[in-house]
Amino acid sequence: MANSYGKLFRISLFGESHSEAIGVVIDGVPSGVELDMNEIMLEMGRRAPGKNAFSTPRAESDVPEILSGIFEGKTTGTPICAVIRNTNTRSKDYTPELLRPSHADYSGKLRYNGYEDYRGGGHFSGRLTAPIVFAGAVAKQILKKENIEIFAHIKNVGKIYDDCIDMANPDIDTLRKLKSETLPFINKEKGKSAEDEILSVRSDADSIGGSVEAIICGVRGGVGSPFFESVESRISSMLFSIPAVKAVEFGIGTEFSELLGSQANDSFVIENDTIKTKTNNNGGINGGITNGMPIVLSATIKPTPSIGSEQETVNINTKENVKLKIQGRHDPCIVQRAVPVIEAALAITVLDLILEAKTYA
Amino acid sequence: MANSYGKLFRISLFGESHSEAIGVVIDGVPSGVELDMNEIMLEMGRRAPGKNAFSTPRAESDVPEILSGIFEGKTTGTPICAVIRNTNTRSKDYTPELLRPSHADYSGKLRYNGYEDYRGGGHFSGRLTAPIVFAGAVAKQILKKENIEIFAHIKNVGKIYDDCIDMANPDIDTLRKLKSETLPFINKEKGKSAEDEILSVRSDADSIGGSVEAIICGVRGGVGSPFFESVESRISSMLFSIPAVKAVEFGIGTEFSELLGSQANDSFVIENDTIKTKTNNNGGINGGITNGMPIVLSATIKPTPSIGSEQETVNINTKENVKLKIQGRHDPCIVQRAVPVIEAALAITVLDLILEAKTYA
Amino acid sequence: MANSYGKLFRISLFGESHSEAIGVVIDGVPSGVELDMNEIMLEMGRRAPGKNAFSTPRAESDVPEILSGIFEGKTTGTPICAVIRNTNTRSKDYTPELLRPSHADYSGKLRYNGYEDYRGGGHFSGRLTAPIVFAGAVAKQILKKENIEIFAHIKNVGKIYDDCIDMANPDIDTLRKLKSETLPFINKEKGKSAEDEILSVRSDADSIGGSVEAIICGVRGGVGSPFFESVESRISSMLFSIPAVKAVEFGIGTEFSELLGSQANDSFVIENDTIKTKTNNNGGINGGITNGMPIVLSATIKPTPSIGSEQETVNINTKENVKLKIQGRHDPCIVQRAVPVIEAALAITVLDLILEAKTYA
Amino acid sequence: MANSYGKLFRISLFGESHSEAIGVVIDGVPSGVELDMNEIMLEMGRRAPGKNAFSTPRAESDVPEILSGIFEGKTTGTPICAVIRNTNTRSKDYTPELLRPSHADYSGKLRYNGYEDYRGGGHFSGRLTAPIVFAGAVAKQILKKENIEIFAHIKNVGKIYDDCIDMANPDIDTLRKLKSETLPFINKEKGKSAEDEILSVRSDADSIGGSVEAIICGVRGGVGSPFFESVESRISSMLFSIPAVKAVEFGIGTEFSELLGSQANDSFVIENDTIKTKTNNNGGINGGITNGMPIVLSATIKPTPSIGSEQETVNINTKENVKLKIQGRHDPCIVQRAVPVIEAALAITVLDLILEAKTYA
Repeated sequence: MANSYGKLFRISLFGESHSEAIGVVIDGVPSGVELDMNEIMLEMGRRAPGKNAFSTPRAESDVPEILSGIFEGKTTGTPICAVIRNTNTRSKDYTPELLRPSHADYSGKLRYNGYEDYRGGGHFSGRLTAPIVFAGAVAKQILKKENIEIFAHIKNVGKIYDDCIDMANPDIDTLRKLKSETLPFINKEKGKSAEDEILSVRSDADSIGGSVEAIICGVRGGVGSPFFESVESRISSMLFSIPAVKAVEFGIGTEFSELLGSQANDSFVIENDTIKTKTNNNGGINGGITNGMPIVLSATIKPTPSIGSEQETVNINTKENVKLKIQGRHDPCIVQRAVPVIEAALAITVLDLILEAKTYA
Repeated sequence: MANSYGKLFRISLFGESHSEAIGVVIDGVPSGVELDMNEIMLEMGRRAPGKNAFSTPRAESDVPEILSGIFEGKTTGTPICAVIRNTNTRSKDYTPELLRPSHADYSGKLRYNGYEDYRGGGHFSGRLTAPIVFAGAVAKQILKKENIEIFAHIKNVGKIYDDCIDMANPDIDTLRKLKSETLPFINKEKGKSAEDEILSVRSDADSIGGSVEAIICGVRGGVGSPFFESVESRISSMLFSIPAVKAVEFGIGTEFSELLGSQANDSFVIENDTIKTKTNNNGGINGGITNGMPIVLSATIKPTPSIGSEQETVNINTKENVKLKIQGRHDPCIVQRAVPVIEAALAITVLDLILEAKTYA
Repeated sequence: MANSYGKLFRISLFGESHSEAIGVVIDGVPSGVELDMNEIMLEMGRRAPGKNAFSTPRAESDVPEILSGIFEGKTTGTPICAVIRNTNTRSKDYTPELLRPSHADYSGKLRYNGYEDYRGGGHFSGRLTAPIVFAGAVAKQILKKENIEIFAHIKNVGKIYDDCIDMANPDIDTLRKLKSETLPFINKEKGKSAEDEILSVRSDADSIGGSVEAIICGVRGGVGSPFFESVESRISSMLFSIPAVKAVEFGIGTEFSELLGSQANDSFVIENDTIKTKTNNNGGINGGITNGMPIVLSATIKPTPSIGSEQETVNINTKENVKLKIQGRHDPCIVQRAVPVIEAALAITVLDLILEAKTYA
Repeated sequence: MANSYGKLFRISLFGESHSEAIGVVIDGVPSGVELDMNEIMLEMGRRAPGKNAFSTPRAESDVPEILSGIFEGKTTGTPICAVIRNTNTRSKDYTPELLRPSHADYSGKLRYNGYEDYRGGGHFSGRLTAPIVFAGAVAKQILKKENIEIFAHIKNVGKIYDDCIDMANPDIDTLRKLKSETLPFINKEKGKSAEDEILSVRSDADSIGGSVEAIICGVRGGVGSPFFESVESRISSMLFSIPAVKAVEFGIGTEFSELLGSQANDSFVIENDTIKTKTNNNGGINGGITNGMPIVLSATIKPTPSIGSEQETVNINTKENVKLKIQGRHDPCIVQRAVPVIEAALAITVLDLILEAKTYA
């Protein structure tokens, strides 16, 4: 089992790249929330491929059909099922016997005893992130009513690094504007360089990695729990569900390892009767529990393993070492598409945490 | 809720630094396993403080009393409860109104509405990792019967980096020897430098961060699941339960973000009829599922926030900005103590994954 | 949250009587199982209304569309989503302000803060048992490969009682034949009387209760766990999920309360090297764990609360006591339709138990 | 896995009859609740044996030691661990090869592959209900602050039936007084007859069954969920965790099966601006959700299988049919001891439901 997440706000994911449809069931939705379908479609659009030179030209319509859980425009509180049909599936010759390096072809075959639907990556396809974005869009609208907002940008593509978010005092206006951008860089010059880099990688039939930095604003202190349900545990567990995420850091993350306590500690300070920290190296979390500062984290996205250049691999039927050139439509860079997916994943997790927090407040 | 982990092999943690006792209940233990208590005590000893100059002089006896679940030296299959009494608790004047920077004092107070047991860090104390080590020691003995072994070393203390483990072909003998070392460095010269660094930090009444690299050998391919129960999700969720862990990376982790697909991909190759990967950048996991290569990961440990030098903070009662000097016994570095805790945490998670894998094999 | 069940074989239910569709996502399906769609449709047909005088004339097509999880006729091991469109929904004037006695109108309104979809009973509609039957039909085919079969019959309709199943030595052939019968009575004369009774109740615009007895054959001893995951806990939790079930009994159930230990105890006896019990008063379960005898249980089905005759109730808007005559299509008796639903529910639960048992065998 | 229960208020049970200790870890306890230890000891005393002629003379001290989770007399919100030492264990010769009829000897042996601790029933011992009573006593004190109270009485012992509780208008004063009685019968004459019956059964070296009726007052309408987390599902799952419970009924339970809808339906009526039902046949639950009326249920307790008279069974080592006379101290009737256990189990479940209800109110 693998495809459901959450304690109180719970999603169940289904579908394969070339099955009839993909989709999600969302349970535990608070009742009476008016859903803005335009907002949802905007979020879906941010993830959808085929719109520019940076991602795969596969044009997915990605229009979710809502089968249940909405009545007279509002959530009923019973499960929402949203289905996205798989329409633009290319009828091509698959060669599942040639294991694509760094894909789930081999591990998936072992896991499902050879019965997996291999077409287009099957259940492992990045396309399965579309229903996650849908569920996240629903969660975001509920969180907005609690004044919680989630932002993300590209931290780097390859060696091109964006400016960092000020973790203790983020510039919300700037971050909000990034939501409509194709390559969400705070520093526009760096963004232009990243564009050039991606196009160059694309022309080499290669791909490139990167990372995404996200910030969650408006969560009160005292949310989360120590140990196995720490905010870090809950968030990381969700982020590592997103294909291609290989590292998750909170606050200054790996930088902690080279610091002294006297450099790393976030001093408390009182400002206008509110307790804050001067710095926010811990990313808003102490002892697994929010301290009222913005929650800050980043996730490393590995370069998509589908590349056009020749690779070494194994033919699992003949048990021979062979060469492989992956045909078809590929993303030279998925970091920009990961941005809305990570926001969505965070929205789902934070809403679940917030609902649980009502039980101990 | 926060204090239980696992689906089939399940632990429930309890206790505070100064309560009567701390401990753990372990459910889902396979029956008929002969437990080697010496091995368990060795593991407990690796974590225990007070043995050298690198950690707090608080000498904890850490001898677990087993209340249930063992009969005639073997596991019965019913829950094991192990209790560790809190004996060496210093009766000192606590000043819980002075929030210790980067500790859980403030977030914990908000979470528990001011009723938390603040003495010695209470439920947030690093001491609570002792029962985790106990549970991990039990798990390790069960895993050994499946030829699964877990190793870890210090990746770095501050700017002093150990040699890396060869992810694709680890030197097991070297790794095994590290288990009895105080500062488990593969490169002994670097280990000596790290000792000097820690002692220097200690004399400055400061602390220092670091990171731990771990490798899990012997897990077959096809274990784990896509999405929300990916091996990365399960492991990271557990590792972020350990106090002071602020980043988790799989395989080459954050390095992926600067690489091209052609550099990052792990080619498949057939060797003696076995499918392997040439490199192991993905740390043994593709699509959330093991591929039969060693599982490799690392965790960043922030410098322990308890430092003797003066810090700025807030008095939560008077709502004033104040200065704070934390008295008492502190660890200048907890990275070496985190090594057995991380191994234990991994053992618990991997055993749970292995048990679940029996249902789909 | 309410709509998912299971640890390893897990279903998530969605839909309302008049939403676009109802359906289910099934996760944890063993891979490589060839599904016989005719068998599935037979099970769906056993539950479907509109086929005879004993149930509502609402003719539901109940043809599930499978969106995912099946590839080349076999289960892939990834989630199966099945969707059943709501086509035959009558556009009638609903009066949700008149609380139907013994329905979920009032409790549901409180639960969902007045935002529930009230049309046709909404999410509380008995129609939601159709996806349960679908999931159960899938489970049954998997169980068959382990030689586990589930049978059920009507124990009574009102005061007309069928012959009981011999709990220790059930007549499988007789039970198997009942699957194709409209009113599954072992004793045909009693079945005829029950038909007459239901038709008489129907002409009175009333409804009638009853109970269903079920038997699960082929489960090995040693499945299940003590206390909170006893086989009785798991099964009862599932059966009480079915609308209208108000009592669940194992073995001789309530009869135990009038017996002496010397009368109630099931003696062990060895037959052909196999340990059995002479009687099976405990319904195959001791200490929450199967003992290898057939699992026997029964469930009480209350008379469907939708009746045509006049009832007293409250208008929740005006807060006045009023009279109510429920219009529309009703079932005079749902006991016979509950039979396949209970079988399905048991199949889901038993498969989940069997999968878990692989982890401790 | 079997020994933990609950989503938000969660208990983990451990121990065997003759292990060092039995106990429970309680997680998710609201913080800041002042616990009245006298009340807790009163509840423990209601269950404890050895106090009268109706139960086993094994005098268990049953004094729980609290290891964690309480600070300055109040709950901290972190886990409470309570341990009860096993002191009065008789060193007798056990003959685990002789399977005691209707006990878990055989099913337990299969479940735990022969490694179970068989002494005194091991983990299956009714003694394990002591920690449940402890956890329930904690839950009761928390529920009291929400004006929720739970009462129970003996519905019948053998053929001697007590008066029924008025489900719609219970007499709270009468019920409250029953808490201090050894054989809690509303009708004192019937209670006297039951006493005589139990003593008579005892002199015959036999045992007798019965049932317990319970009522939960003060739960608001709108608590619980449809389908798999119906209030009936949650409660029954808990009640069937209690050894010897073989049937669970809500409201009029099995009586529903002989009734017409017109007889069974609970009419709504408005009284003092409050919506109520005239009758409470449904036991306060419609569609799995509370309707604001008292929750009423009953549980059948089978006669304890430990009887002194000769029984037929199997020697599992020699595989021969043999005769068995169970020696030692036995309860002729456990129905009266089940009363506080059932109250405790209900308190745990209801508190968990109430906490979850805070998330959707």
